[in-house]
Order: sequence, then C-alpha cells, then structure tokens
Amino acid sequence: MVKIAVIGFGNIGGGLVELIDKHKEIIARDCGTEVEVKYIVDIRDFTGHPLESKIVKDFNVVLNDPEVSIVAEMIGGSHPAFDFSIAALKAGKHVVSSNKEVVANFGEQLLAAAAENKVAYLFEASVGGAIPIIRPMRESLSSDDIISVNGILNGTTNFILTNMLYNGKAFEDALAEAQALGYAEANPSADVDGIDACRKICILAALAYGVIYPCDSVATEGIRNISKRDASDASELGASIKLIGHAEKTADGKVLISVCPRMVPSDVPLSSVNDVFNGIMVSGKAVGDLMFYGRGAGRIPTAGAVLADIVEIVKHLSCGQLPPSKWTRGAGSELADAKAAVSKFYCRVNGNKIPEGAIEVIQKDGETAIVTAPITEYELDEMTKGFEVVSKIRFFA
Amino acid sequence: MVKIAVIGFGNIGGGLVELIDKHKEIIARDCGTEVEVKYIVDIRDFTGHPLESKIVKDFNVVLNDPEVSIVAEMIGGSHPAFDFSIAALKAGKHVVSSNKEVVANFGEQLLAAAAENKVAYLFEASVGGAIPIIRPMRESLSSDDIISVNGILNGTTNFILTNMLYNGKAFEDALAEAQALGYAEANPSADVDGIDACRKICILAALAYGVIYPCDSVATEGIRNISKRDASDASELGASIKLIGHAEKTADGKVLISVCPRMVPSDVPLSSVNDVFNGIMVSGKAVGDLMFYGRGAGRIPTAGAVLADIVEIVKHLSCGQLPPSKWTRGAGSELADAKAAVSKFYCRVNGNKIPEGAIEVIQKDGETAIVTAPITEYELDEMTKGFEVVSKIRFFA
Repeated sequence: MVKIAVIGFGNIGGGLVELIDKHKEIIARDCGTEVEVKYIVDIRDFTGHPLESKIVKDFNVVLNDPEVSIVAEMIGGSHPAFDFSIAALKAGKHVVSSNKEVVANFGEQLLAAAAENKVAYLFEASVGGAIPIIRPMRESLSSDDIISVNGILNGTTNFILTNMLYNGKAFEDALAEAQALGYAEANPSADVDGIDACRKICILAALAYGVIYPCDSVATEGIRNISKRDASDASELGASIKLIGHAEKTADGKVLISVCPRMVPSDVPLSSVNDVFNGIMVSGKAVGDLMFYGRGAGRIPTAGAVLADIVEIVKHLSCGQLPPSKWTRGAGSELADAKAAVSKFYCRVNGNKIPEGAIEVIQKDGETAIVTAPITEYELDEMTKGFEVVSKIRFFA
Repeated sequence: MVKIAVIGFGNIGGGLVELIDKHKEIIARDCGTEVEVKYIVDIRDFTGHPLESKIVKDFNVVLNDPEVSIVAEMIGGSHPAFDFSIAALKAGKHVVSSNKEVVANFGEQLLAAAAENKVAYLFEASVGGAIPIIRPMRESLSSDDIISVNGILNGTTNFILTNMLYNGKAFEDALAEAQALGYAEANPSADVDGIDACRKICILAALAYGVIYPCDSVATEGIRNISKRDASDASELGASIKLIGHAEKTADGKVLISVCPRMVPSDVPLSSVNDVFNGIMVSGKAVGDLMFYGRGAGRIPTAGAVLADIVEIVKHLSCGQLPPSKWTRGAGSELADAKAAVSKFYCRVNGNKIPEGAIEVIQKDGETAIVTAPITEYELDEMTKGFEVVSKIRFFA
C-alpha cells in the first residue's frame, strides 16, 4: 500500500482524488500495490464533505508523516507551491505536480533537490494536459538531437482562434464565448497574452536542451491583436492562425525560444489541431517529425496525467529509483534573438501601395496584405519602412 | 561503459550502429556512461567492411560474453529471432527488438522470461516506427481505462491510399509506384493484405488490455479491393479511406480487434495522416482522445526508437531494474465477433435500385453507393440481400 497526499483540493486536485478512487482496481493491478490518498491539504473549510476525515489544513502533518511517500502538488501559483514541494523533496518524499508556473520558475532547483534526496520530481501534467509529452521527451527522445519543438500549448487561445477562423468571430466575441464556457478566466491575460504558452515552451525547451530559461526574457506575443481580417486572409492563403510556442537550436548553438501567433499552412499537421485541443510537434534528427495531440486541459484529463506520474513512481518503488533529470538555469541574455529568426511573413499595410519583395498580395478594403519570402523581422521592418503596418504575422517555419 | 550486440546488420541494424556512433556524445551525456557496439552478428560476409572487426557469425559469442549486457535483435522474421532473444534473456541480457512478428507471436513468453531473469524486453520500434507509442501505453496510460485504440499502422498502404485518394490512381498503379520508391516489397502481401497492421494492432491491444491474441484469428482485410470509385466516393462524402487497425473492449468485456479499410471523416484527426506517416489514436476514460503521429518506418527513424529502448535500459542499470511487463495469451475464440460491431457503412451495389435504409445515396455509372445508419455487418448483409454488392467499407467508429 502506497500512501499519498494531495495538496490543493481544487479542480485538478479534486479530479485526482476522484480518479484514484475510480481507477482503484486498475491502479492496483498495474502497480502491484494499492494507492491510497491519506491526506488532502487545503486551507479552505470542507466541513461535511464526504472526505472531511482526510482533509487537513497544515502541510506539516504531511511532511512529518513517514507513511506518506508521494506528494501531489495541485495548488497553482508559485507560492506556497514551490515551498511545499521543496520541503517534501528534502523530507525524502516524491513530488508530482501539474504546476507549470513552479516548474518553469523553479524546475532546476526542484530537480536538483530530487536528485540529491534520491526521489523523483515529475510534472507530466504541466504541459499539454492529458498528452504524454514530458515522459516521451525525457525518455524516448533524450538521446536524439532535437532540431525544434513547436506547440499549440494553450487550449483557451486555440479555442478563440478556431472560433475566429471558422466562424468569422471577432477576438472580443470569441473571448467572451470562451469565458462563458469556462475555458477562459475573467482575467484572461495569462492565456491571451501568451504567458501560459511561454511557461510551457520554456519547460519543453529545457527538456530538449537541458537548460531552463527565464520566461520573462522570451519574446512573447499573444493573440489580442489578431483581427477578423487576419483570420480571413489566413483562410485565403490556405493557412490557420495558431499561437505557437517555438524552441530550436540555432546554427551558432544558441537556443531560440518564442511565443507568437503564426500562419500555419494546411499541410502542417498542427494546422488541424482545433478548439481546446493541444498539439506538440517535435523534430529530431533521428526520429523526424513527431506530433502529439490531445486535450490540453480539463479536470479529469489533467488528473490522468498526474496519475501517470504517481503510477510511474509506485512501479519504481519496488525496483529502485527513477533516473534523475537535471536542468541548468540559463540567463535570458544567452537566448538567440527571436527577431533574427528567418521565416515567411504575412504583413498588412494601409493603402494600395505594395511593399517591394512581396511574393503574394491580397488587396481589400484599402489595405494591402502581402506574403514575403523567408526573411528576418529586421528585413521585414526595412521592407515596410514608410508604410503604416497594420498587422504582421510570422509563418510556421 | 555499456556494451551491446546488434543482431542482424541489415537496414535497421545498420541504421542503429550508425546512430549509436553519430549520437555518441549525446548518449553518453544522457546516460552518464558510454554505449559501445561490441559485436554485430550477421551470417553474411562483410570482408573489407570498416566494421569487419566487430562482425561475428556465431550468436554464441555474444551469449557467452558477460561484457555484453544488451542485445538488439534486428533480424526480422520469427526464427532465429525468437530463439536468439529468449536465449539472451535467459542468459541475463536485456533485449530490445524492432521485430513485430516476434513480439506478436512470442511476446508473452519473452516478457515472462525477462521478468524471470530480472532483465528488460523492450520493443518500441515494433509499432509506429519512430513514434513513441509503446512507452506511453506502458507507462502513461497503464492506469487509465482504455476505451479503444485506432491506428494507421502501415506506411506502405497509407502511401498507396493517399495516392489513390488525391491523385486518382488505381490500386495497381499506386502499388507499382510504392514499389518503385522502395516503400513496398516485390511481394507486397504483408503490407497490402493487412498482415503487418494486424501484428501491430495485436501488440497495441495487448498493451491496452494485457492479453495478446493470435493474429490469425483477427478479422483482417487489406486494401487490394479498394477501387478508384471507392476513393472518389470517399472524397464526395468528405472522408478519406484509411487502413485502420482497431481494438476496443466491448460492453460484455470481450476484446474486439479488426483490421480493415475505413471511411474516416475529415473531422477525425487520423483522416489527415497521409503518405508514409503513421497515426495512432488512443481513447482513455481519463485522458480522452490522444493521437500520436510520425514516421512509421525508415532506417534512421526506426533505429531512433530502438536507441530509445537501449537508453532507457542503460539509465536504469545504475538505479535498479525496470518494472516488468506481463501479458497473458488469449485464445482467438475469446475475441468478440468483428461482424457484430456497429458502425455506419459505405456500400455500393450494381444497378439503380436503392437498398432500404440508406441515409445517403450516390448514383453513378450504373452503380448505387449508399451510406447506412450505424448497424452491424449482419444487418448490412440483410439490408443488401438480393443486391449484387460491389464494395462495402466500414466508417470510422
């Protein structure tokens, strides 16, 4: 019997407790032992809740109970999630987390603490919700030479963009619909400004290249400025607009990370990843292009990913520890200049004059949209000097 | 330093040796130790080959060398691949394989021998080539309740079908082109008759349900009978024809496995898996629909999947063994009746009379194509009694 503590009895934490109960028999058969939730830690009051007897307010109860071998941190936000996690690792407990903010901000410290204390820190649910992506990156692709990672990593923005593209909605209306459906928060900034996608691509870049870079030094652009006209031009060009987290190793050995909306041509598999689904494309020198697709969020799908981490740990309890992962922390200043990355651009300017070097042109409503050959953003700025630029969107490279 | 032996110096075996050399440094960094190919076993003559000094003809050299801890079986075919593999496991050596025939036919014996001797038998490359699918099924999804697995598992037939659908080619011409490009063998039966896809779906079903069923009791239909008219009707119905390996748990607890061409509507992600690519969709009660996409074959992509297995073993050498997998062998007679499975059907009959119960009709060239409501194949046969049936194709369910 393995006893675990779930920290945070919110959406995902509640889903995890439910799932562990519902899949009790499968888990026991799979692990060769039962898994039981001994504590649920939450500072809120759950008087009268059927699980009241398991609920404690003080995390120290968990920390001081040697029976608890695994802590599932389902709190969200940096603190106290980080503090509880590092304390648990130092106390020799394994920690699993769905908290991308903590993994992106403190991943290297937490992994180091885990290695030092011969326990595991796993976070499959922090990127791509239900999609197994962290484990394949960590295990199946770790000895490949990763050329690039491209991901639709935020379901809320993908829902909004899909709605704009297929139903001709304006951004504000599509956002309001996402909020009404519970896909977007009242304050949607973390989603629509690309902050959530940025944390996730930083985590994927760390898995690919071993270095975690600070999110606030990553060139990050959200989807607030995407207009109905951008969406309809995208359709005309045979592309979809997607918010893409991108990471690659450049020719000079630097890591390039960016988050921005991109025109994704319809022959790229990511172009058909719609609604709240996520898709992650990994290109390796040996394996070629791989894509992983699934639900990027949701109570039970995300809890399923957390459960997979718990099960991995339980399976290894009887036969030795998991191989440790290690990241170093990179300075933002070491990142490659995202504006110097080469790709085709979609660019729309006011008026009917066509910037020189356009390879495709759509003129409508007093505006001129062009597609460029593959160039840097500096070259695009040069090319459109003297024009009033209304919109510029990179193509998927 | 970990020493391995590669058995079979053909396409994949050669690719593996090449990849281990090329990725030497990444592997050493990732594993914390170097990996070296000590022997290459092949009965053919390689006099003058740059690796001649590593090549031996007798597998016993490997078996009797305690320095070799991992054997990579890259032979193909059932024998001597199975015999070498079981001997290696019994000698306490880990075995990795890309051989779907051996895994499908002898998987349960090999896994049992591995567990008994506290070594690993891994076979990521046996299904989906470069796509990490075995490991996610084994680790990330093992505690989920798998509803179904649907896969485009054979690149050759997918190349042929894509060519028929988009370029209006006849089967024979598309096959000839696949042969000219080296995608199909001179004797293409294993591919076009669905045998290869059948082995792979049996392996995936075993990962999902713990039981491996004999391939020859699985309802298997290839793509030889798919006509240009089928392909053009598919387009008209907004679908693609794909050879789908399907496995599910039926309501009465039986496992249903089938391989047959299916009409896949364009809103199903598998419909856009084209050319030689493979796509595998796994539906779990917790995680929902997941799709894995990538190159299903090829020297280096497949070798990359084998390398991932080797690396997993090496990483665990220093910190305990891998958790054992276990399959039982099911009798073919226990499988659910594939004809009793319910789905929409596409069916084409001679003449202009319309079978009763059609929900869509395409009449052309003296033939009548219909789409049915979801029914069993028995009900379809009943419905088309007295008609001369030219073609019947299940829809993706």
